[in-house]
Amino acid sequence: MASHLNLYQLNHFKMRHGGELNQAILAYETWGTLNANKDNAVLILTGLSADSHAASHGDPHDTAGWWEYMLGPNKAIDTNKWFVICASSLGSCKGSTGPCSPMPLSKEPYKFSFPDLTLEDIANSSFEMVRSLGIDKLKCVIGPSMGGMTALSLLLQHPDASHHMINIASGCYSRPFSTAIRSLQREAILKDVNFNDGYYSSDEWPTQGMKHARKLGMLSYRSAEEWNDRFPRSLRQRPDKPFGIEFPIESYLEHHAENFVHKFDPVSYIYLSRAMDWFDAFDYAKNESHNPFERVNLDSAMVVGARSDLLFPKEQQKEMATLLNDAGCETQLEITDSIQGHDSFLVDAENYSKIVAEYLKDL
Amino acid sequence: MASHLNLYQLNHFKMRHGGELNQAILAYETWGTLNANKDNAVLILTGLSADSHAASHGDPHDTAGWWEYMLGPNKAIDTNKWFVICASSLGSCKGSTGPCSPMPLSKEPYKFSFPDLTLEDIANSSFEMVRSLGIDKLKCVIGPSMGGMTALSLLLQHPDASHHMINIASGCYSRPFSTAIRSLQREAILKDVNFNDGYYSSDEWPTQGMKHARKLGMLSYRSAEEWNDRFPRSLRQRPDKPFGIEFPIESYLEHHAENFVHKFDPVSYIYLSRAMDWFDAFDYAKNESHNPFERVNLDSAMVVGARSDLLFPKEQQKEMATLLNDAGCETQLEITDSIQGHDSFLVDAENYSKIVAEYLKDL
Repeated sequence: MASHLNLYQLNHFKMRHGGELNQAILAYETWGTLNANKDNAVLILTGLSADSHAASHGDPHDTAGWWEYMLGPNKAIDTNKWFVICASSLGSCKGSTGPCSPMPLSKEPYKFSFPDLTLEDIANSSFEMVRSLGIDKLKCVIGPSMGGMTALSLLLQHPDASHHMINIASGCYSRPFSTAIRSLQREAILKDVNFNDGYYSSDEWPTQGMKHARKLGMLSYRSAEEWNDRFPRSLRQRPDKPFGIEFPIESYLEHHAENFVHKFDPVSYIYLSRAMDWFDAFDYAKNESHNPFERVNLDSAMVVGARSDLLFPKEQQKEMATLLNDAGCETQLEITDSIQGHDSFLVDAENYSKIVAEYLKDL
Repeated sequence: MASHLNLYQLNHFKMRHGGELNQAILAYETWGTLNANKDNAVLILTGLSADSHAASHGDPHDTAGWWEYMLGPNKAIDTNKWFVICASSLGSCKGSTGPCSPMPLSKEPYKFSFPDLTLEDIANSSFEMVRSLGIDKLKCVIGPSMGGMTALSLLLQHPDASHHMINIASGCYSRPFSTAIRSLQREAILKDVNFNDGYYSSDEWPTQGMKHARKLGMLSYRSAEEWNDRFPRSLRQRPDKPFGIEFPIESYLEHHAENFVHKFDPVSYIYLSRAMDWFDAFDYAKNESHNPFERVNLDSAMVVGARSDLLFPKEQQKEMATLLNDAGCETQLEITDSIQGHDSFLVDAENYSKIVAEYLKDL
């Protein structure tokens, strides 16, 4: 619903690796009401492919958001109590300025002239927008997946940005296995015959590369365990041609890939993907034995993971919680038994609602 | 060394899904000496990309084989004691007849006119060759990875083929997660612009697809845990172009992919890959609750897995061992702590030598 979309303009916005953006837009949505003290604000930082529409706004014709179960009146993130803000990430293609947006002067799309994008830039642009609303300090920043790393990036750059943090299915950096998957996703897109250095058209779209990238994504977002139950071999079908689709898991991946292929801009995808691989909380450490979170002034934090997560395995949430506790930030760690892998926070409403609600009710 | 390569000719060899091969070759090597009773024979069935050269033959100029540490005089598979046979799989491109071999009449390569290939065909062709040596019953069949499934296929079709079995890093069928990875590998090859329905040339080779398939393979053969230690983020390099190789894991994958790309025939690869996804020991069950191994007359078996194996997770070896035991075959199960994932049997010489040696010494 366009009426719920707000646009914030970034000017002379300096990017971490150099370059700046002018007349750049950050598209965001809000839920609930900011109180007079402006101290009930909760910022949600999103995963790679999500947008600002985390939940519907109560209108009868509004569509469901990507975290619909989590956010709303009397839900875990209770919008009767909190003023909740969620932006489409800078560099994304969901309303905020990114590589497929027109440049201010030429009106041509940025493509690869878009400056290097880091999670620091996403964090800084979001926080600038938050401050434009008169909010000096957030009550809580909540980040799942890439958003969890962006939340760390926000706090490492702005140690007083938030009183609390909920960090879900994320880590202090990307491990080689996850980087390998993302590297193969980027490669599939970049080497697509239609990629054409980013100058694809809607008629000649890098469909094959985007589909392949999405299928690789599905492999890493869900879990082998869940798939054993969902895709029994008995459902094998006769392929329509040799080496055509035959196994139920192939139909599932094909279906998800078809749905995704035009929903995301290919250049935007590889920029965001690389930003995840670049992020490293230890860039903020003074030396090899320094705990980078010592600079952060959080009152408390909650770190959540799923034991079935391949992309950000539970060891990464344990490491994050340990580092935060060692740095003097009281941090709870919850590792769920959810079998839906990295995506558990999106689908296991029961477990994740409960964890988030319990933490937020005491703030 | 060509002098150690033996060729067995298959005539009127009936394939499981229909069709037959004539004047087809099975290339195999042997180590040790077949005794007078012909009861000291050990057959090794290989993984997807391996060949008959499991080990060198003692000549000073001979090259190392893919299981060099395991096989030889006084090694775990002691060739002073056993007569060991290893063939390149039917359908492969390493000396045995496969899709890139010339057809007997036209001398044109089979390509997609090669009949559907199943692990049953690989098992049957190997066993026909074994019997041609006058061996009625093997002392032991040893199969790692795809070879483990081929070993099951051999025994399900020929219940008296062997007294014993060592089954490593394998399963009774492919799970959806593994099928998904192989499906993406096949897709990368089939959709390569140079694939040309299989009529690629050495100048216009589906390099990109083969490289991508190999990288996906590496992802599933090794383990995230091993990579954490091997590829510290500190070794990041500046890419030579935007989105070029930057992370150490990317260099590693690129290096392995470059080495592999011309070492395997693309059509052969997808035939073998599909054969793994087709195999299901439960095809031999009389009904849903029937244990297919009840038909098998093994004296004993050893099932080995690694806790870090993503492709054939340890639950699959547990399931296989349980089914074998339930069917009356005394079966030991060993799950190693090796961190090298599915490839542990190729690299963790210490653990795997010990397990195989212990089992074989009592036979």
